[in-house]
Amino acid sequence: MRVEGTHHRSIWLDEETGALRIIDQTKLPHRFEVRTLADFESVVEAIRTMRVRGAPLIGVTAAHGLALGLSADPGDRALTRMANELVATRPTAVNLHWAVVRLVESVWSLPPEERAAAARARAVALCDEDVACCEAIGTHGLTLLRELAREKSGEPLQILTHCNAGWLATVDWGTALAPIYKAHREGLPVHVWVDETRPRNQGASLTAFELREEGIPHTVIVDNAGGHLMQRGLVDAVLVGSDRTTSTGDVCNKIGTYLKALAADANGVPFFVALPTSTIDWTIDDGLEQIPIEERDAAEVREIVGRTAEGRLERVALFSAASPVANPAFDVTPARYVTRLVTEEGCFEASRPGLAALRATKEADRDGD
Amino acid sequence: MRVEGTHHRSIWLDEETGALRIIDQTKLPHRFEVRTLADFESVVEAIRTMRVRGAPLIGVTAAHGLALGLSADPGDRALTRMANELVATRPTAVNLHWAVVRLVESVWSLPPEERAAAARARAVALCDEDVACCEAIGTHGLTLLRELAREKSGEPLQILTHCNAGWLATVDWGTALAPIYKAHREGLPVHVWVDETRPRNQGASLTAFELREEGIPHTVIVDNAGGHLMQRGLVDAVLVGSDRTTSTGDVCNKIGTYLKALAADANGVPFFVALPTSTIDWTIDDGLEQIPIEERDAAEVREIVGRTAEGRLERVALFSAASPVANPAFDVTPARYVTRLVTEEGCFEASRPGLAALRATKEADRDGD
Repeated sequence: MRVEGTHHRSIWLDEETGALRIIDQTKLPHRFEVRTLADFESVVEAIRTMRVRGAPLIGVTAAHGLALGLSADPGDRALTRMANELVATRPTAVNLHWAVVRLVESVWSLPPEERAAAARARAVALCDEDVACCEAIGTHGLTLLRELAREKSGEPLQILTHCNAGWLATVDWGTALAPIYKAHREGLPVHVWVDETRPRNQGASLTAFELREEGIPHTVIVDNAGGHLMQRGLVDAVLVGSDRTTSTGDVCNKIGTYLKALAADANGVPFFVALPTSTIDWTIDDGLEQIPIEERDAAEVREIVGRTAEGRLERVALFSAASPVANPAFDVTPARYVTRLVTEEGCFEASRPGLAALRATKEADRDGD
Repeated sequence: MRVEGTHHRSIWLDEETGALRIIDQTKLPHRFEVRTLADFESVVEAIRTMRVRGAPLIGVTAAHGLALGLSADPGDRALTRMANELVATRPTAVNLHWAVVRLVESVWSLPPEERAAAARARAVALCDEDVACCEAIGTHGLTLLRELAREKSGEPLQILTHCNAGWLATVDWGTALAPIYKAHREGLPVHVWVDETRPRNQGASLTAFELREEGIPHTVIVDNAGGHLMQRGLVDAVLVGSDRTTSTGDVCNKIGTYLKALAADANGVPFFVALPTSTIDWTIDDGLEQIPIEERDAAEVREIVGRTAEGRLERVALFSAASPVANPAFDVTPARYVTRLVTEEGCFEASRPGLAALRATKEADRDGD
């Protein structure tokens, strides 16, 4: 999508040098900095420190990381070690695992000297697939938004979103924001309530940035405000992404998503979750019991980076280091609170039969290819 | 309660000079600064900019403000103007109104030259009454905590609180924290989950500060985390304060309280609201329809003050001023989500009959005096 009017992806290969480029998302919204990732280690660092984040983007970045690593050491042992190291960087998002497995499968049977080039080609293909997948999510999600818009008689559709499930979380388009971009482009009036999303503020920093650059009306709110807005009838739909989805429709997403799902349920607001099917973990059926929740560093809660009046970026402490901190990064929204899953295959019920129908559609699509 | 081992109230008259002193709560937790409020205007400024905050503390500070104002101009017109100005500073908290009305009633019939001294005496009395009231809330709330503790077989009782309803929000003891202080003093093990409470971070800044100074185990979490903790059985009770309570038991409190009430309800966690009966607005019976919700400045969300590595306090912007902000300061938790109201008169159901019983107890107490 657009930054200052120019189309960008969140990850790309430089046309001239072939170098891997990313947008350093830890610098947004204060600075738009493009960074080159030159080797496997820089990729691991970028994922771990969340220069790139968002389940789909983590997956394709890891794929490119393996390609870079294989160009330094294409041996079996290196491949295994790198794959394990990547998967361990972020434990909750399942499509990191998905992308790494796909990459390894595609090069395992090749002679070492062919692996790096093949991995690179596969990583590029995964990026393009991700774009197509997200655009399809946008198209399917748009049908849901159009239905809701019918009751608004021209007033903007009020959509609340949490965290950033926009193009910066994927390669382009985004998941939860894709239907919003589609709606905006076809002239359906929308207004987005953007949850700040503490502690890393991806909503205020990334989602608001994306929407602003696309010219989409939005308002930033603290995470505490969403229930109040729903209670007052100011939200027509909640639309969020997912880091991992079970075969029964439980959704693991950024911490705080569950609270918004409860408020949506209590106030009759539809709660939509947009996701590529690569975030579905078909091996599990109980999100609360089976999804490991990443516990991140206390400093994420205690400290924050902002811009001073003079334009410097400054890290400041918000409270005393003498008070302990807990920082779970994700929570699980049980399937019963999810109105609909929006995927590249269409919209499905968040239930065992719904997921089975999704799987059947996916397999039929594949057979039809 | 204690700051560095020394007992403090949040507002007091200097023993030597008689000057009105407050703790500047906008500087906490970074600096413990005592400030003198020398005239009516400084009191209005202190309330408006939240140097003092918390419904009970706002009330008694306003009372002292009227006393200061009357020493400059004790006339009827000045009294009316000042009373109106004070009531308008913060629209949601009802005991600001309650305290101002009490003060005006106590001086209205006096000759102007006697008003300032009488107002001052009344303000001092209101402060002492507030301390007694909060301590009684602590005693009654403790009975609820003791009951819950029976099932913990010596493990700490896990209590989640939102915002700051501690001694800094009152004159001493606090409302929601009073039962926790009582529990700690009598050796009942407690651990407090402290909601950060965006946008002003009163939880991380004030509640964590209070608990630390009293040596009570606690952990700071972002507002997004509470639902996750309740879902995992890590919270035995939620205990919050109230800025205004209806005659039917609806509770208006800091924005985000409602989301915690929904999570408590969904997970079978008792949700207790501690309040002095002065926060009850007997004239209204529908919190959602009848309580005005203060909309505060966008800068509270966009900017934050923290401490740099060098120890300077620095205000930094978190995101672009080009993104609009909404900043409702309170929300309403409908009575059906409130397990019990904890007041200085005892514990009551949050319902019309419950409030009627509370009123009857209060009137019987008064008649018995």
